[in-house]
Amino acid sequence: MYKKTHIFRVMPGQELLTEIMKYCRQNGITSGIIIGIIGSVTSARLNYLKELPGKYVSENYEGPLEIVAAQGSIALKGSELIIHIHIQLSTQTACFGGHLAEATIFSTAEVVIGELSTQISRYADSYTGLNELLQ
Amino acid sequence: MYKKTHIFRVMPGQELLTEIMKYCRQNGITSGIIIGIIGSVTSARLNYLKELPGKYVSENYEGPLEIVAAQGSIALKGSELIIHIHIQLSTQTACFGGHLAEATIFSTAEVVIGELSTQISRYADSYTGLNELLQ
Amino acid sequence: MYKKTHIFRVMPGQELLTEIMKYCRQNGITSGIIIGIIGSVTSARLNYLKELPGKYVSENYEGPLEIVAAQGSIALKGSELIIHIHIQLSTQTACFGGHLAEATIFSTAEVVIGELSTQISRYADSYTGLNELLQ
Repeated sequence: MYKKTHIFRVMPGQELLTEIMKYCRQNGITSGIIIGIIGSVTSARLNYLKELPGKYVSENYEGPLEIVAAQGSIALKGSELIIHIHIQLSTQTACFGGHLAEATIFSTAEVVIGELSTQISRYADSYTGLNELLQ
Repeated sequence: MYKKTHIFRVMPGQELLTEIMKYCRQNGITSGIIIGIIGSVTSARLNYLKELPGKYVSENYEGPLEIVAAQGSIALKGSELIIHIHIQLSTQTACFGGHLAEATIFSTAEVVIGELSTQISRYADSYTGLNELLQ
Repeated sequence: MYKKTHIFRVMPGQELLTEIMKYCRQNGITSGIIIGIIGSVTSARLNYLKELPGKYVSENYEGPLEIVAAQGSIALKGSELIIHIHIQLSTQTACFGGHLAEATIFSTAEVVIGELSTQISRYADSYTGLNELLQ
């Protein structure tokens, strides 16, 4: 069950992940689900996992691009707040989706977070080389 | 928190946005989250924001196309009900995602709405030229 | 309203649909919403509806591919548990989305399910040739 549903806007020129992190800190959210994000970005950097453990490549995209959808979670690894989001972007001619590293807002991002009443946590998984969800 | 979770089907030949609007009116929903939509369409029109303020281009797609995912919200701008949805469509050979302007259902659309207990609102933002989420 | 929000991880090498089915059986979930899935897969098979009634084509994809997003539901058709998921996958160079038939996990899949307090059901629809949502 969600303790609370949060809906907020990220403004033109702001960096999406930074603003979500800031919102979580200001509102004391340490555990939650990213239910959705829609809007548009001027640029973005997405990561793609290629090899285990933890070998990523990064791609930069120049927009404007629509934010079609995003999903993920907010969790703690010890006392560190970890926001893990995958995002789908698009133009008229192409689609890109991957692990959100960075994105600068064009017109808006409408972020919906379901704050959880139970704490979800992450730990360093040596097999994947990533911070994985603790069961 | 959701006041109620609504799950309903849009039928073959029906227009997706029209039916969601109709469902909201019939069920008195003025504030909510589009949690998800999956199904398929025979055709669709998506919008892509290119310049601010508010300069869109529209693209028409002929299907059948899968509805892979959709996210968005239901809000009021004064007394006007505004449904804002971004949607991801696909065939075997291509993906398209953007702002949903119109879509005709092929087999089904399974729509999930989380009705909110608080009212979310929009206003005309002169910078973006769009109806943006009021904080 | 969700009775309970479930968040769990599917492990490297496991098949995604099988594990979601297993989780639902072990936790007595017969009605729910797939709120989201993110992670990565080594391979996947997706279905695309081409003609009614019920004519699909299948495509196989070799990864690693990111799981960008997924949506769907858990319902009963009589006593049969039916899990219906559409999923968006991606690499640096391409995106694929469709009806999830099978997917083998690469690093992780983080699955979020909203268990419903009301039962949703499916029936065999002769027009579409598919198990559709009962209104």
